[in-house]
Amino acid sequence: MSDPSDSSASVADFAPADLALLQKAFAARKEDYLRLAADFDNFRKRTRRDSDQQAAAEKESFIRELLPIVDNLERALACEGGASSAQLRQGVEMTLRQLGDLLHRHGVEPVEAAGQPFDPHRQEAVAVGHDPSQPDHIVLEVVQRGYCRGDKVFRPARVIVNDPDQSSGAGRVR
Amino acid sequence: MSDPSDSSASVADFAPADLALLQKAFAARKEDYLRLAADFDNFRKRTRRDSDQQAAAEKESFIRELLPIVDNLERALACEGGASSAQLRQGVEMTLRQLGDLLHRHGVEPVEAAGQPFDPHRQEAVAVGHDPSQPDHIVLEVVQRGYCRGDKVFRPARVIVNDPDQSSGAGRVR
Repeated sequence: MSDPSDSSASVADFAPADLALLQKAFAARKEDYLRLAADFDNFRKRTRRDSDQQAAAEKESFIRELLPIVDNLERALACEGGASSAQLRQGVEMTLRQLGDLLHRHGVEPVEAAGQPFDPHRQEAVAVGHDPSQPDHIVLEVVQRGYCRGDKVFRPARVIVNDPDQSSGAGRVR
Repeated sequence: MSDPSDSSASVADFAPADLALLQKAFAARKEDYLRLAADFDNFRKRTRRDSDQQAAAEKESFIRELLPIVDNLERALACEGGASSAQLRQGVEMTLRQLGDLLHRHGVEPVEAAGQPFDPHRQEAVAVGHDPSQPDHIVLEVVQRGYCRGDKVFRPARVIVNDPDQSSGAGRVR
């Protein structure tokens, strides 16, 4: 494929004063144009295909990393003679660690929210709690963990927020 | 952005016989060329960015679907008063079902192999077993489940293959 910046250099920059020469240059320039247009068209088709392939490959690579975790969870369940509660718990804890590692490798990190001031940009209040021993607008409890990716919210945490003055007790606001 | 096939139509197809006219047409053709080259360049830059974004978006969308499964596994573990073995088992079974559904939605399916003839294109033999009651080259046991995506092997199964005539008993060939 030709590089447009290179190809433009091959187009004569001057218009010859001789009619026959100019006609030749005109025809050459037309060919340059058509060649570039064809390259552009091919590039367009190819990048659409490449883009789809790149997206599929990245997702597949993630799934490939997920499968061993699925294997381990299956193994925890398939323990011969039935796994004890402690064994199962260990298996689940290991699976969660592995899932956390997998997310971490792909830049997705859990965000701690409990005990911190409520941040409506990073958290979603699903209920109001009533704990006079805690400051106003503190996150009392995380109902669903939040995740970030870099400095962006990947999934907002769903939290219960404190309203110490609330007289009617805790209530879901969802 | 101009469409190359459209733009090429704007380039005069004839070379005027009048020198002054031809010089004008020549200059116009040069402008057409440079415009197309600039469009091409912009397109190239933009598609690279778009392609990266598309790949990131597809992976992120998969991860977003994975997070509720992580939540459920965390909940199974956080059961108040400590989960019983049965409760934990239920939690793990549900998680595995959800993981299977997630893989299914993205076209990745487990492949059954036990009891079927060994297929070196879809399976990897990690050991030879010795069971005279079973046919030769039958998969006796799946050590690690295989997955396919469409008609492609996504991950080969790791299996133990039968060799009924083997006199020295089972042995790992890995």
